[in-house]
Amino acid sequence: MVGAVFSALTGFMGMWLAVRGNVRVAAAANESGEKRAMRIAFRTGGVAGMFTVGLGLFGAAVVVFIYQGNAPGVLEGFGFGAALLAMFMRVGGGIFTKAADVGADLVGKVEQGIPEDDPRNAATIADNVGDNVGDCAGMAADLFESYAVMLVASLILGKVAFGEQGLVFPLIVPMVGVITAIIGIFVTGMRDRDRNGMSAINRSFFISAAISAVLVAVAAFLYLPDSFSGLTGATVQSDADPRFIAIGAVLIGLVLASAIQLLTGYFTETNRRPVREIGESSATGPATVILAGISVGLESAVYSALVIGGAVYGAFLLGFGNVTIALFAVALAGTGLLTTVGVIVSMDTFGPVSDNAQGIAEMSGDVEGEGARVLTSLDAVGNTTKAITKGIAIATAVLAATALFGAFRTAVESALAEAGGAVKSALGAFSTFSLSVDQPNVLVGLVIGAAVVFLFSGLAIMAVGRAAMRVVFEVRDQFRNKPGIMDGTEKPEYGRVVDICTRDSLRELATPGLLAVMTPIAVGFALGYAPLGAFLAGAIACGTLMAVFLSNSGGAWDNAKKLVEDGHHGGKGSEAHAATVIGDTVGDPFKDTAGPAINPLIKVMNLVALLVAPAVVQYAGNPALRIGVTVVAVAVVVGAIVVSKRRSVTTEPANNDNREHQPVAS
Amino acid sequence: MVGAVFSALTGFMGMWLAVRGNVRVAAAANESGEKRAMRIAFRTGGVAGMFTVGLGLFGAAVVVFIYQGNAPGVLEGFGFGAALLAMFMRVGGGIFTKAADVGADLVGKVEQGIPEDDPRNAATIADNVGDNVGDCAGMAADLFESYAVMLVASLILGKVAFGEQGLVFPLIVPMVGVITAIIGIFVTGMRDRDRNGMSAINRSFFISAAISAVLVAVAAFLYLPDSFSGLTGATVQSDADPRFIAIGAVLIGLVLASAIQLLTGYFTETNRRPVREIGESSATGPATVILAGISVGLESAVYSALVIGGAVYGAFLLGFGNVTIALFAVALAGTGLLTTVGVIVSMDTFGPVSDNAQGIAEMSGDVEGEGARVLTSLDAVGNTTKAITKGIAIATAVLAATALFGAFRTAVESALAEAGGAVKSALGAFSTFSLSVDQPNVLVGLVIGAAVVFLFSGLAIMAVGRAAMRVVFEVRDQFRNKPGIMDGTEKPEYGRVVDICTRDSLRELATPGLLAVMTPIAVGFALGYAPLGAFLAGAIACGTLMAVFLSNSGGAWDNAKKLVEDGHHGGKGSEAHAATVIGDTVGDPFKDTAGPAINPLIKVMNLVALLVAPAVVQYAGNPALRIGVTVVAVAVVVGAIVVSKRRSVTTEPANNDNREHQPVAS
Repeated sequence: MVGAVFSALTGFMGMWLAVRGNVRVAAAANESGEKRAMRIAFRTGGVAGMFTVGLGLFGAAVVVFIYQGNAPGVLEGFGFGAALLAMFMRVGGGIFTKAADVGADLVGKVEQGIPEDDPRNAATIADNVGDNVGDCAGMAADLFESYAVMLVASLILGKVAFGEQGLVFPLIVPMVGVITAIIGIFVTGMRDRDRNGMSAINRSFFISAAISAVLVAVAAFLYLPDSFSGLTGATVQSDADPRFIAIGAVLIGLVLASAIQLLTGYFTETNRRPVREIGESSATGPATVILAGISVGLESAVYSALVIGGAVYGAFLLGFGNVTIALFAVALAGTGLLTTVGVIVSMDTFGPVSDNAQGIAEMSGDVEGEGARVLTSLDAVGNTTKAITKGIAIATAVLAATALFGAFRTAVESALAEAGGAVKSALGAFSTFSLSVDQPNVLVGLVIGAAVVFLFSGLAIMAVGRAAMRVVFEVRDQFRNKPGIMDGTEKPEYGRVVDICTRDSLRELATPGLLAVMTPIAVGFALGYAPLGAFLAGAIACGTLMAVFLSNSGGAWDNAKKLVEDGHHGGKGSEAHAATVIGDTVGDPFKDTAGPAINPLIKVMNLVALLVAPAVVQYAGNPALRIGVTVVAVAVVVGAIVVSKRRSVTTEPANNDNREHQPVAS
Repeated sequence: MVGAVFSALTGFMGMWLAVRGNVRVAAAANESGEKRAMRIAFRTGGVAGMFTVGLGLFGAAVVVFIYQGNAPGVLEGFGFGAALLAMFMRVGGGIFTKAADVGADLVGKVEQGIPEDDPRNAATIADNVGDNVGDCAGMAADLFESYAVMLVASLILGKVAFGEQGLVFPLIVPMVGVITAIIGIFVTGMRDRDRNGMSAINRSFFISAAISAVLVAVAAFLYLPDSFSGLTGATVQSDADPRFIAIGAVLIGLVLASAIQLLTGYFTETNRRPVREIGESSATGPATVILAGISVGLESAVYSALVIGGAVYGAFLLGFGNVTIALFAVALAGTGLLTTVGVIVSMDTFGPVSDNAQGIAEMSGDVEGEGARVLTSLDAVGNTTKAITKGIAIATAVLAATALFGAFRTAVESALAEAGGAVKSALGAFSTFSLSVDQPNVLVGLVIGAAVVFLFSGLAIMAVGRAAMRVVFEVRDQFRNKPGIMDGTEKPEYGRVVDICTRDSLRELATPGLLAVMTPIAVGFALGYAPLGAFLAGAIACGTLMAVFLSNSGGAWDNAKKLVEDGHHGGKGSEAHAATVIGDTVGDPFKDTAGPAINPLIKVMNLVALLVAPAVVQYAGNPALRIGVTVVAVAVVVGAIVVSKRRSVTTEPANNDNREHQPVAS
């Protein structure tokens, strides 16, 4: 409960701050120039960032303070609440924002030929609201949850490695992060030689990462013992020095954050080769734009996955052959990565704040010349910062999920130790812990895990399509019934589109949500704990690649469009522009709905698996119960998919609920 | 060597037959009607099918006859040769066919507004040649290789389970398949109540599957012992009756083939809901067509993966807890699936034969009225049969790869048994066989395996884009320099486009080919045998999903275009038609290059892993050698990627080799 409430609170604060920040940024751009507008936008995000890390650290610290040695178990609940709510906000927010965006574009830009953010478009307000819902609320809740889950994993593993003494250091590292984030946000300001806001943001990021590295090294010497021997409650024996392992792991996390930052920047910035090539492919039409974007996305996913894999492997090597220490190192690398969360949330919130500032300026019609140029520049920087934070969020998800494997193993092993003879004989070869993928049933679990990622992505993209269609019907209807809208004598009813988006996004998030919660239960009870473990591994491997692919191809298309709008390949209104607009529309649900939602999906599935693992082992010898649970779980998922398909576009206009949208009757 | 030569021979025969068949089909459609045209097209494929299964069975039987007990080891080489060549033919053929197709469409349909297969388009001949190269040569070689690899796996496992007696039954099952395929092809003929050729083909498929099931049951009682005990050389003990296990496994394979047939049909046929919905989404433009196709593809991949996973799990259950028997059952399920190969190759070759028959009719200008209608109908049926054979090919790849895990385990275990103390201590926790994915390094191997699939797909799509661009330059150039082409007074130089496609496809296949061969070597030597095993599992899981996703979304877009061309949503020339043409162009490299090539990719990587596994274990304690091998393997892959990027579109017009294409100079 507390985890969910804190997660919701973080999301709410992100939005609350953003809607106050964006109008000030628009005003500052108009009156005081780029530097001041940039600073307001970034500091708005900074407050949201402080809220995220503050609540995360506060929650974890209170739990550790109250429950002491039992804290890890209680924190699982804290993490689960946070993860579940974050997934709902990510999926729901993602559907809201892209339904409004795609719907607004299809009727406004394509059918009526009016510019983006034009007040005559009934979906404009919903579009701007959506930016806040998806990127501020969704991302803040998501990163809060990464923060919480990472703390959970490192506290669980810290306790295994060092006994109760291991509960302190994992809290010190993020505390260092809070301090350095404050410094990072404070020093962010554009200098005269900066090309654009991105340089200032990069500087702030790297300064805070460097200070974190130094402070964490100091903390390791103050708060960690110099050997693994002789600790109360510790189960680990190794000759290695824990302090150097910890420093090394945190450094790996910081290097990983920087590498993802650079890689994502390379694949999505307008002045780099991948986006330029997508822009060039617009000369031969939309099909080649789509193909170029997809191949750029696929390729970039591979490099990000390899960098994340390299970080996991580096942390593994720090374990010197001991798996528990290796997993603790993975968790610490994740905590190291998350010391940058304060700055990351600032960067991310910066995106919708500057995007909406431009929207407000466009709608008010009062900002022109230099002010408009400043806002466009800030908006392009915001596109890149949004892509970068998505890359870092997925890296944290992978590290958290890998570290949670340790918790999964512990849960299964203690259940196996308690199990009676009947359970042992039912488990057969799996009565000693093994997730070996050469076993056909384990491999099947792996395939199902990867498949859930594909299904989840497909469902999220379809949900956006359905919701966008209803927005299209509504906006068309308003244009038809209120002919005064086009010449400005009548006002569109913005609220109706906001209502549609709200209702549909809430309704549409049920299916992906149930999929995430029910599939680990079904796999565990139907196939056993080993296929369930492999299921998680499959979801991690495939989810990493799919999330980066979707986010980066979407980001690259968005900036390829910006490139053409800046006057390349024919500029606005050319055939090339139309081709890149199509690419951008395809990319919208990729990068803002399906891609970022994979991140909480992975963590929710991990936590559900962790929670059901003991029951899965305990009831291994009870086929009736296993079949019963499986049937119910599968029925719920299949039912949800069937119901959501019923809401398909084609049937909608005949629906009572929407009868006023019928082209003829009204 | 023999495997590669046989694989090449199968591919060559497929093409040789197709180019003779298609002109007869065109003539028969014009003169004798649908029934006769349909029969000629299907029987052309039938001869290719007989060649494929005949050569596979002949090769394996000769090896077993000569080498007896050592046959499995020799057959690994046979399978590897076949797989490597099949991959090259799949990738090369796929690039050839789609470069010609996309290039022809971009200049012909889009820029010059002339119809498909118009003889004024210089790329028309290359396009028609490409259909044969990709679908006849590529698919025949691919299925030949599945056939060979499946036989290898079942013979290896058969020997482990039954001693030398186990080498007979795995050869009997495909022999049964030869007989039933002849029956199936012989009975294929349209009846008066058949809606189209698809009904006749389905009937033939299900008849031959049913007869196979009966004959295999008889064979099991004749050629298998009634218990696992007392067999020379057998290592397995179980109370189960081997005959029923074998019959059950073969039945699973046959049911799987039928299920894939129905599933793929559902997602790609023009009269089913998914394609209809893609067609409807064309009302809001190309972006929604792309999104709808992608979500249909993602969803269909999940169901196919679940069906394949279900088959593997079913075979696993037949092992009654014994992994060796379970893997033998998986291999037999694969052999069961492959009893249908004769009919499957006929179905697949049917596609390009009827496609080219339509092309020949269009170019000759002599076929009109009923004849033209017949050819269009056969072409649409061909689109669906091509999609179905791709689905079945990927299912065989998964079963073969799963069964090869048994061989991988045997190879690693015997290497571990021979290894000295230094190797054991270097292997640490992995000195007893384990591929448990809760180990961080094993998980990293898994992620890399999944990543290779993404990279391979991205590279293949990019390669098509580059080659298509050069075709575009050439065709544009010919239109510019030979103004008589458009009014029919001059003939375009078809040969030049064929040359470009041939040269580029040979050049472009190097990078994906090296990726497939080098990455298992790099992962094995850098990370060890356990991450290498997980690497294979990751590639299988992700590859299954990606291959089905790419094939089905491509097939669905193709038929959505056909739906619009049949007069729905505005028909030919409408905005909706333009939107579906864009979808089809995006789908071309999906379904004909990247998707089907994943299938041999998985098998090549499995066989390479199997071949290097003993060396990986043996040199575990030799870091210098491991680093050396890894560096060389990684350098080769990175070098190949960098070189292929250099051939990028943007630099091409300035290239000496193509100087005559420069817009101004010529």
